Amino acid sequence: MRRIAVETDILAKNNRLAAGNRELFGRKGVFALNLVSSPGSGKTTILERTLRDLAGKVRCGVIEGDQQTDNDAVRIAATGAPAVQVNTGAGCHLDAHMVSHAAEKFDLDHTDLLFIENVGNLVCPAAFDLGEHHKVVVLSVTEGEDKPLKYPQMFRAADVMLINKTDLLPHLEFDLERCKEMARRVTPEIVIFEVSARSGEGMADWYAWLEKGIAAAG
Amino acid sequence: MRRIAVETDILAKNNRLAAGNRELFGRKGVFALNLVSSPGSGKTTILERTLRDLAGKVRCGVIEGDQQTDNDAVRIAATGAPAVQVNTGAGCHLDAHMVSHAAEKFDLDHTDLLFIENVGNLVCPAAFDLGEHHKVVVLSVTEGEDKPLKYPQMFRAADVMLINKTDLLPHLEFDLERCKEMARRVTPEIVIFEVSARSGEGMADWYAWLEKGIAAAG
Repeated sequence: MRRIAVETDILAKNNRLAAGNRELFGRKGVFALNLVSSPGSGKTTILERTLRDLAGKVRCGVIEGDQQTDNDAVRIAATGAPAVQVNTGAGCHLDAHMVSHAAEKFDLDHTDLLFIENVGNLVCPAAFDLGEHHKVVVLSVTEGEDKPLKYPQMFRAADVMLINKTDLLPHLEFDLERCKEMARRVTPEIVIFEVSARSGEGMADWYAWLEKGIAAAG
Repeated sequence: MRRIAVETDILAKNNRLAAGNRELFGRKGVFALNLVSSPGSGKTTILERTLRDLAGKVRCGVIEGDQQTDNDAVRIAATGAPAVQVNTGAGCHLDAHMVSHAAEKFDLDHTDLLFIENVGNLVCPAAFDLGEHHKVVVLSVTEGEDKPLKYPQMFRAADVMLINKTDLLPHLEFDLERCKEMARRVTPEIVIFEVSARSGEGMADWYAWLEKGIAAAG
């Protein structure tokens, strides 16, 4: 019981701070997305391509969460977008407090779209609201179709799913329709994009969705 | 501080129970391995192939950890090996208490090798000893070479690494040597096997290592 009480405390505190972030993003007209996935699903590669393709049209910023290294922030900065690395050390997820401090480092008055790339972890980040507009879950076609059922908390917390690495489909036994059906079994209204961040296939639909969200947030 | 104290309590309790599991596995001559990885790295497929290839030579059992579903236990049972599914619900890792109860369901007097397939999570299972002989981390070549540096706790806790899905290497930009170098930077003495559970490539070396471990444990 003691363990549960402490967990409730942590989540309640996180929710208060997330509400503060949400108010800030709303006031500044920033469309904020929390990218969650297994390690290695391609979140950073999706961001690199998105930032390059939207450059000059959309003013983006990226908060990069990792246990260690600033590898991802270095990759993002190379696209020209401002990037802030948060290292969680032993921690398995970003929390609203970390995001609130990282957000201070951006010029939010001149930011349209803030990506928050969470620690690669398909479990723990599900419980932590960061104040984002949407949790976007990325699933790579190399991971297997049944992940939505095996990690239902994450696929319930997310309302957008990117199925990435579709360029590898010819080399895999991966049933795209079955995967989408399983995601919809958990979250019937989930918005799904099939993309390859490597080849660029399917990215245009994702960009159109982003621009709609930015317009609504601004 | 309060949060840290509780975490210490939980880990201390887990370590006591893990010591009990270790004593049990030692007494029964069971070689116990804790398989950890990102979701979708291919742990279950590695087990399916291993169990089929070792059938008749090695008496195996499998504890399957997942947040939800018994998909993996069903796959394992189809190989003929006894399988026990543990669902962690909201939990992000197996702990020694769960393993202790699951182990009761096996005939350990007639088991040589017990695989414990952890929840797919490259962060949290690192901290939880289950009483195993080795933590075996599985990394798929689709995940990127820098995972050992980005998730150092897990690659420090593990002393064996399987690099899986090598059959996909021709379709990827994945630098195998760089990946191994990064793993050794975290754990210099890590034992590495390059395998494809799909094609069977490299599995013989893994089996030879298993048989050596079984002989030493028995």
